[in-house]
Amino acid sequence: MNLSTHAFSQIVKHYKVVFFDAYGVLKNSRGIISGVAETLLWLTRAGHDIYVVTNDASKSPDAMTQSYVHPEYGSLLSASRIISSGLLAKDFLRSKVRTGRVAYLGKPGSAFYIKSAGLEALPVGSVTPADGVSALVMLDDEGFDWFGDLNRALNLIRSTNIPVVVANTDISYPVSGNEIAVAVGGLASMMEMVLGRRFIRFGKPDTMMFSYAFACACANDPSVAKSDVLMVGDTLTTDIYGANAFGIDTALVLSGNTSASSAEVQISASGIVPTYVCESILT
Amino acid sequence: MNLSTHAFSQIVKHYKVVFFDAYGVLKNSRGIISGVAETLLWLTRAGHDIYVVTNDASKSPDAMTQSYVHPEYGSLLSASRIISSGLLAKDFLRSKVRTGRVAYLGKPGSAFYIKSAGLEALPVGSVTPADGVSALVMLDDEGFDWFGDLNRALNLIRSTNIPVVVANTDISYPVSGNEIAVAVGGLASMMEMVLGRRFIRFGKPDTMMFSYAFACACANDPSVAKSDVLMVGDTLTTDIYGANAFGIDTALVLSGNTSASSAEVQISASGIVPTYVCESILT
Amino acid sequence: MNLSTHAFSQIVKHYKVVFFDAYGVLKNSRGIISGVAETLLWLTRAGHDIYVVTNDASKSPDAMTQSYVHPEYGSLLSASRIISSGLLAKDFLRSKVRTGRVAYLGKPGSAFYIKSAGLEALPVGSVTPADGVSALVMLDDEGFDWFGDLNRALNLIRSTNIPVVVANTDISYPVSGNEIAVAVGGLASMMEMVLGRRFIRFGKPDTMMFSYAFACACANDPSVAKSDVLMVGDTLTTDIYGANAFGIDTALVLSGNTSASSAEVQISASGIVPTYVCESILT
Amino acid sequence: MNLSTHAFSQIVKHYKVVFFDAYGVLKNSRGIISGVAETLLWLTRAGHDIYVVTNDASKSPDAMTQSYVHPEYGSLLSASRIISSGLLAKDFLRSKVRTGRVAYLGKPGSAFYIKSAGLEALPVGSVTPADGVSALVMLDDEGFDWFGDLNRALNLIRSTNIPVVVANTDISYPVSGNEIAVAVGGLASMMEMVLGRRFIRFGKPDTMMFSYAFACACANDPSVAKSDVLMVGDTLTTDIYGANAFGIDTALVLSGNTSASSAEVQISASGIVPTYVCESILT
Repeated sequence: MNLSTHAFSQIVKHYKVVFFDAYGVLKNSRGIISGVAETLLWLTRAGHDIYVVTNDASKSPDAMTQSYVHPEYGSLLSASRIISSGLLAKDFLRSKVRTGRVAYLGKPGSAFYIKSAGLEALPVGSVTPADGVSALVMLDDEGFDWFGDLNRALNLIRSTNIPVVVANTDISYPVSGNEIAVAVGGLASMMEMVLGRRFIRFGKPDTMMFSYAFACACANDPSVAKSDVLMVGDTLTTDIYGANAFGIDTALVLSGNTSASSAEVQISASGIVPTYVCESILT
Repeated sequence: MNLSTHAFSQIVKHYKVVFFDAYGVLKNSRGIISGVAETLLWLTRAGHDIYVVTNDASKSPDAMTQSYVHPEYGSLLSASRIISSGLLAKDFLRSKVRTGRVAYLGKPGSAFYIKSAGLEALPVGSVTPADGVSALVMLDDEGFDWFGDLNRALNLIRSTNIPVVVANTDISYPVSGNEIAVAVGGLASMMEMVLGRRFIRFGKPDTMMFSYAFACACANDPSVAKSDVLMVGDTLTTDIYGANAFGIDTALVLSGNTSASSAEVQISASGIVPTYVCESILT
Repeated sequence: MNLSTHAFSQIVKHYKVVFFDAYGVLKNSRGIISGVAETLLWLTRAGHDIYVVTNDASKSPDAMTQSYVHPEYGSLLSASRIISSGLLAKDFLRSKVRTGRVAYLGKPGSAFYIKSAGLEALPVGSVTPADGVSALVMLDDEGFDWFGDLNRALNLIRSTNIPVVVANTDISYPVSGNEIAVAVGGLASMMEMVLGRRFIRFGKPDTMMFSYAFACACANDPSVAKSDVLMVGDTLTTDIYGANAFGIDTALVLSGNTSASSAEVQISASGIVPTYVCESILT
Repeated sequence: MNLSTHAFSQIVKHYKVVFFDAYGVLKNSRGIISGVAETLLWLTRAGHDIYVVTNDASKSPDAMTQSYVHPEYGSLLSASRIISSGLLAKDFLRSKVRTGRVAYLGKPGSAFYIKSAGLEALPVGSVTPADGVSALVMLDDEGFDWFGDLNRALNLIRSTNIPVVVANTDISYPVSGNEIAVAVGGLASMMEMVLGRRFIRFGKPDTMMFSYAFACACANDPSVAKSDVLMVGDTLTTDIYGANAFGIDTALVLSGNTSASSAEVQISASGIVPTYVCESILT
């Protein structure tokens, strides 16, 4: 392929609605990327409807908006613009579990998605057989003891046949410097392998994420069609693959997971081809 | 779990919309199951909106309706009620490929999904480098020479980076008696393994199938909510898993893939739990 | 198949050499199984050459012999009769790493296999870049902090290209009651998935375990042929699969992982067929 | 890593025994590589014991020697120096199946490995239930009709619980130009996925191949130790990974599967590190 890059400011003009991945596009390990605040303000003023579509169930959309507060410009995004994989897990719990207690793995803040579905949230470490939990939700890789609580969760699943929901499909995530860490989706894959079972997963690249965000955009403006939407992401296998399958246009940015030097090789090896490649959303 | 079965006629009353899997629910290797015609007529007269949600891209929805013509009652289902995985592939081709020639593996009839997206369909066996094809679509396991054309498709994919679309996720399907055959999804998995690539797949259990059918039901009656929809299927890992993830109620029938004797073991081993279990849709 | 069981005492007569799996055959969560001591003594007196072939790198063969000390009869097995997956890892380190420092995950006792290869063993938690470690060995699931040390190990592997050795292929193991726990092989699979790399693994069902034990038996009696050896195990996918592939006869015992009620189903579903099925080695 | 290449003629001096992969090292799609004949003659005259260790069950070792006949120098290798994965399958059949009829997929010439185990070989296409076959052996990707015979083999396995042996683990192989084809190991993986079963596989990277060749070398010269053996191959994931796990030294050559430009990236990404890298065996 011909890896010519486009200026983001030029291509975005053709789209009414823009979906952004968070990490590697808007933020990095030091917080919001310098210049992104101005881009978001400019897009909003120019009439674009913008959403963050993120594999994250570690905190509520309200809490996530804190990352998008600028010292000068104030809040850049409202909670209704943040479509997290946790919201899909919440909908599932509300429609399929309905009442009772739900065990979870994650930080206390991540239990928001269980409580807002009208259910009682119990950390796996405190569950007893008498609790009669109706589901297990894997929300985050932090906030519990891996050795004790992963083994406890394994045996809880084996001794009941409650559904297991994974609210973030990512298997790893970047931390500071060049380092990575195992994400809750990676822990879930290990448990599926041990149990010979398949859990219910929410998150990119599954198209439900894009379907949910698209429904929000349509509720806002019923004239929106798929051809009016652009997904902007830094990862071929989640952002670009999923948005391609959903049928919307895609821009791969080189400000995160995929470096300029490896983009061409990765696109060619994976066969996952974005509509555009941009250096970043600042161009 | 307590595997008590329900009468289908009793539970279906609570749902405005019913999604049916085709094979093992409405049909078997000898054609439409005896008694199903009467059930479909009764459901329609009682005001239920019914859809067939099927992993099948071997022929067009129009051609599929031929299976649902009764000698006495005539046509039981119109083409607009048949939601096939081929339709999702067609939408993808229309939105992401747009123009040009597309190579395919399948029977000539399956090329309907390419042509109706406004594209030119070429069997893999007749593609030359000069054709400059823009995508490869795997539609069916029949209609081509496996040895020659699968190897030809492999090298076509390696020498270009065209997207590969798999219009049926099933890895096997039942044929007469107790026998099975490799489905196009199984052939696709082998090719993905050899290439180290991931193709774009359409079909249950992916929730796009349910999303598409739900959008049709909503277009018909905007008051429909997910809680008004029942998915009826014979396979836990596709029909029930996918509909659970999409957030609608499910009925497992024991007239196909899952026998009464194995249902309890399979539900418990897989953790995929249907809302109801019914002997068949005739009860 | 015809799941007729055989008396172990009758079939063992035909074999000069007997390989035993440890857990579920000789031991369970309460220690050595009642009656096993007498069987081992009887076999030894009758001239059978016996070995324990075990996926275990949590302690040295010497330490493992402590499990086989009977209050009345004394030591039932010498360390030379215990063939652990740790020994294969040790041989690998000695032949391929040779000198320097090796990082490990496991209990301090498991570091025996590194030290006895003439290398310096460092727990992953204490490794610094300045240590210049030449390999990472995954020995046991205990003795370290999963969250901190698994993530640390991931980044150690990414920043070097040292070989990673997994000294126990098991993905889970039984603990008290009906409970299980993730084994070091399960943790290794998660790390391989995150890294997109394949580690070097030692343990059943890989045939190297049987090859190593067979070489010991041949060193003891050069007239021994493969047809003189019987592998006795409780797990189809490790003990029986591996010994089948190595070309020796196999007896599945129903005293551990595989219950009498599920044996026939499991054999038929897996296609892994033992030469004999015995209730236990006490029959 | 520092990808400095070594002259093969210099490093080979340190090894009494040399194992060669065939394709990409000694041969390519046009036959024996120019200059290889002289190298093999020189090595033999210098007293090195040489073996070809190859994933190939398409023809007998005798037939394979025909590839190593030089117009001037005559036969370069005797059949006893060719260690094929077919030989391991033959040993398995002899020790575990013993008598009766065995179904196979492959060319008629590949049935050598069944017949030389004293068994009757029937092509899958001609097997009837009355034949009562005792095993199925997958030998080669050619010589049968993929569609008809792979589906026939699937149902033969489902209706019996005969062992299935795969005599070549490769999932693809190079053909002329830059093209590849699915190998019998790839077909086997598809069938395992459809059936939910694991077949018995013989071939690199499994260490049994190296163990078998090492036993031949030891029979020839009982003083040989693992440190006297060098494996020379062009593929990291089979030749180098397997020989590393077996504990012998390795030389990656850049005359086949792994190009000079990609070797460093592949070694670093896979963590599979050869002892040496050589341009070819002609250096």
